[in-house]
Amino acid sequence: MKIIEKTLTISSRTRNEMIDITSKVSSAVSKSGISEGDCIIYCPHTTAAITINENADPSVPHDVLLTLAELIPHHRPGYQHYEGNSDAHCKSSLLGCSEHVLISAKSLTLGTWQGIFFCEFDGPRNRRVILKISGE
Amino acid sequence: MKIIEKTLTISSRTRNEMIDITSKVSSAVSKSGISEGDCIIYCPHTTAAITINENADPSVPHDVLLTLAELIPHHRPGYQHYEGNSDAHCKSSLLGCSEHVLISAKSLTLGTWQGIFFCEFDGPRNRRVILKISGE
Amino acid sequence: MKIIEKTLTISSRTRNEMIDITSKVSSAVSKSGISEGDCIIYCPHTTAAITINENADPSVPHDVLLTLAELIPHHRPGYQHYEGNSDAHCKSSLLGCSEHVLISAKSLTLGTWQGIFFCEFDGPRNRRVILKISGE
Repeated sequence: MKIIEKTLTISSRTRNEMIDITSKVSSAVSKSGISEGDCIIYCPHTTAAITINENADPSVPHDVLLTLAELIPHHRPGYQHYEGNSDAHCKSSLLGCSEHVLISAKSLTLGTWQGIFFCEFDGPRNRRVILKISGE
Repeated sequence: MKIIEKTLTISSRTRNEMIDITSKVSSAVSKSGISEGDCIIYCPHTTAAITINENADPSVPHDVLLTLAELIPHHRPGYQHYEGNSDAHCKSSLLGCSEHVLISAKSLTLGTWQGIFFCEFDGPRNRRVILKISGE
Repeated sequence: MKIIEKTLTISSRTRNEMIDITSKVSSAVSKSGISEGDCIIYCPHTTAAITINENADPSVPHDVLLTLAELIPHHRPGYQHYEGNSDAHCKSSLLGCSEHVLISAKSLTLGTWQGIFFCEFDGPRNRRVILKISGE
């Protein structure tokens, strides 16, 4: 049982953005030498998230961000958090701060259309994503 | 440390549907011979999801699907994805494409009312769910 | 490879509440003696959830609960579940019943502002949270 941890650094450019990190995660898995196991993709921030969705057509992340913006407006009567980014905290809890991907035959077992996205909800900022790759 | 992977095949019959896969997952865990560990239930599709919720009363999945439909309509002004299934992609990211269940004494540690559901949001289709059972 | 399971007991006091369980989880991880690995925080209930978000300013959980209440009202025309808590089941599936946190150098790898919350959506009740700590 081997456990490898690696930190990715990400720079977002706008307030709300889904950044495709699939190739960075894939590359870390290849370099780990682990052939059967799994990879946790963990976001240590409370105004961002990790999600898996289609990365072939860029309109999919666009439509996900649009839906989140309509459901969770930047300013809502009743918000108490003084930093003015309550919407980002809500989106973070709804999408979740981590995803789990399986590793088989030394590569990520992603579906045909699946990509891994870092979701920025309070950018632009410099961010980190922690990968924990375990297996044999 | 033992790692067993198994693929389930699922056929959905309507566009939006929650299909109870608890017995299929339980059976795979029993056959694995693993007594202490965990099971990742992974959906490799971007218009479907995995969730855990009550499977005793079928009105619970009905009400979850109703809520998702009201929050995320099939057609929303501004959607750009040409396939017309942006709602399904959004629901997939909100519920998430995997769940993690613990294994103790050779069986799934589910709560009394918990069942595992494959959530179809763009059916009917033939789908796959990948189980990764690890432990000792 | 060591696997340790521990059950936390939690008493909620209102119908909707986010209860910070970070110190309980941290303490269980310290006592486990595991230095590199991960901890699954699993909620075996279908009207509650686990989430990770900011625990420094109590207005953040307030605003998350407010947003959930506005998106998913207690009573919605069309709900069929006879127990009258369909909203709680929906919130449970949206936030998810488990989270995964990494362990490095014998402690939880949480971000600076991250705390672990048990989310009650149908309280007050006595609840359980199962921790599964694995690693070396």
